[in-house]
Amino acid sequence: MSTAVTLTDDSPGLADVPGFQLAGVHCDVRETGNPRRDLAVVFSEKPAVAAGVFTTNDVKAAPVKHCQASLAAREDFHAIVANSGNANACTGVQGWNDCEAMAAQAASLLKISPDQVFVCSTGRIGRGLPMGKISAGIADAVAQLAADDAHSLDAAWAILTSDTKPKTVTARFSVGGQTVTVSGMAKGAGMIEPNMATMLAFVATDAQVSKAALQAALAEAVRSSFNSITVDGDMSTNDTVLVLANGVSGVAVDDAASEAGAAFRDALGQVCRALAGKIVGDGERITKVVTLNITGAPTDAGAEKVARAIGNSLLVKTSWFGNDPNWGRLLDAAGYARIGLVEEKLDLFYDEIPVIEQGTPLHDKLPQWKQAVAKKTFTITMNLNLGSGAYHLLSADLSEGYVNFNKSE
Amino acid sequence: MSTAVTLTDDSPGLADVPGFQLAGVHCDVRETGNPRRDLAVVFSEKPAVAAGVFTTNDVKAAPVKHCQASLAAREDFHAIVANSGNANACTGVQGWNDCEAMAAQAASLLKISPDQVFVCSTGRIGRGLPMGKISAGIADAVAQLAADDAHSLDAAWAILTSDTKPKTVTARFSVGGQTVTVSGMAKGAGMIEPNMATMLAFVATDAQVSKAALQAALAEAVRSSFNSITVDGDMSTNDTVLVLANGVSGVAVDDAASEAGAAFRDALGQVCRALAGKIVGDGERITKVVTLNITGAPTDAGAEKVARAIGNSLLVKTSWFGNDPNWGRLLDAAGYARIGLVEEKLDLFYDEIPVIEQGTPLHDKLPQWKQAVAKKTFTITMNLNLGSGAYHLLSADLSEGYVNFNKSE
Repeated sequence: MSTAVTLTDDSPGLADVPGFQLAGVHCDVRETGNPRRDLAVVFSEKPAVAAGVFTTNDVKAAPVKHCQASLAAREDFHAIVANSGNANACTGVQGWNDCEAMAAQAASLLKISPDQVFVCSTGRIGRGLPMGKISAGIADAVAQLAADDAHSLDAAWAILTSDTKPKTVTARFSVGGQTVTVSGMAKGAGMIEPNMATMLAFVATDAQVSKAALQAALAEAVRSSFNSITVDGDMSTNDTVLVLANGVSGVAVDDAASEAGAAFRDALGQVCRALAGKIVGDGERITKVVTLNITGAPTDAGAEKVARAIGNSLLVKTSWFGNDPNWGRLLDAAGYARIGLVEEKLDLFYDEIPVIEQGTPLHDKLPQWKQAVAKKTFTITMNLNLGSGAYHLLSADLSEGYVNFNKSE
Repeated sequence: MSTAVTLTDDSPGLADVPGFQLAGVHCDVRETGNPRRDLAVVFSEKPAVAAGVFTTNDVKAAPVKHCQASLAAREDFHAIVANSGNANACTGVQGWNDCEAMAAQAASLLKISPDQVFVCSTGRIGRGLPMGKISAGIADAVAQLAADDAHSLDAAWAILTSDTKPKTVTARFSVGGQTVTVSGMAKGAGMIEPNMATMLAFVATDAQVSKAALQAALAEAVRSSFNSITVDGDMSTNDTVLVLANGVSGVAVDDAASEAGAAFRDALGQVCRALAGKIVGDGERITKVVTLNITGAPTDAGAEKVARAIGNSLLVKTSWFGNDPNWGRLLDAAGYARIGLVEEKLDLFYDEIPVIEQGTPLHDKLPQWKQAVAKKTFTITMNLNLGSGAYHLLSADLSEGYVNFNKSE
């Protein structure tokens, strides 16, 4: 029997985890005078094990390279400093030096070592960070650090860019009378696609875990969450998921086959999937979230190709925006994934309503199709009937508002 | 010394080629009463050699399969029957039978064999053809066939879907006192991407050429024209390029190394590139055409990946729409092509204006960047400085109008 994991969808975020302090402040990173919060600090009172997954873009922002270097160097971490409004990407040597300065300042104030601090940035590419403002923000945030809900939500707000709301979630499970908490916060909005996106996600837990086990558990959780979403097909230079585990629950979770280990992986997966769902649901100017459920492909990789071809097709996404049950565009996109689709074998459903059976459209069901695709969320199931490969992708529509929003920064 | 090819950009189309008759009529394929022309017939008085290139989508419309079967079966062709408004795609056995009926009717009226007739369709996917209307249209068009400019333009109009204007071009060259003509017409507008698009292109020539040589010359011409454009990244089920060569000029062009052979390939390439350019320039609700010129990649294939990542990026395309010199999005997209780009080596230009030199942005040139990207057409040159691979892609911006136009059919 597996241990039940309880998910709290509207949690205050990382302060739910014993031993973590947070702050989110305004320091005007955007240099526009807009009073929004734009710098967050996450602080683990005890040294924490860490794991990370990063963008696979050839063009990696300085903070991504800096996080990767820190992660490789140590086993004991204490803090994350993250700013929104400027990605510190394509900023050359200066960008790296700015990361070092941010880590050094936070470390000095927190009385830890600079390589115990992860630095993350998100926002506009190609401009140097306003380091005077950033430095004031770090000082302010460290001074404000607290373990309460309000400060935790401040941090969740501070990492947002074009998101419209903070994204937090907490999972809990109990083993032998001990409760383990896994809580996360994320930002998304645009550049959301394979292998992460302009997305940051920070997860904290009080589970007791080795670095290697945590990294493996995170990689698995990311595969079916942050790597299974798409908004616009654009992968960012800054994507970062970090997990800090401080061990204060005393519950050891290294062994995936143990009761606690299985529950921990379940909880981490649920947190990542919930955050990923919130990212798609708050994609730039989207009006609906569509789940693509591809089955019966020759391989899982083939199913993924079909799902991504559909989920990134402009013609498909605009038809979703228009509530148009345009299954022809779905078939067209599936076909150009070129995995050997056989039209005559294909079954297609909007939610539970059959659209195509063995390649033949059931035109008399058009009124039901229209009802299904007019909903804010619906599922498209495509069974290729060629094998046992499957893939699941969360996607979104494309609106005129997206174009208007992104036509200039 | 190579033979000069003269290109006439606003030609009447295929009637420029001796021995070809055309017609374009209204038969209400869309069943909306809209009086636009929607059925074209191309007729070669003498048997013509043919070559064709077709969509590589797994989901091929019935007329594509029918054309491929016809092309394989014979060496002597006489006609093309093409309708707009309905793609005859995803229509199963009925779709194939409708192709056969269209070919049979045209053949009967033209006193030729059904397998000497190519059938093409473009338009909405997933609905059966209105065969009563199509049949009336074929009868009408065959009755109207003529070799003059007006009928040629009627045909060029009849194959359009969401295009706003007909696309025709004629190339001519002379060898030994004999003139050879190559003329084409095309339709494009949406679903325009790799390996063709919802595009049809029909080319006629009076060159004397074998089927094998014509096929090779066409494949080469398509590679650098119709396969080097993108509007929205969607590849269609119906893409077809057909060439008919009736040999009446008496000029043999089989040998690519001969004066006439080289000039013919040059002319065919120019016709295909001109038509491809017209397709992008008339893409659905686009406001500008951007040439992507990727050089210095490790391989040509790598350069193509970078070009397509940029040319299909929603964030890049929306920034073009907004006249925003957002080179950060260009770098981001180039990076997720994942061909091993090294940021520090990269040079970037808007037209002739340097943007990035060896990875460093030249911010003082911002006013010039803005001028360059505000133009209706401009070129982005990205030199990766990693090797000698190169690729050239014509792309377009993404407007709010595109989304509005495609949100339902």
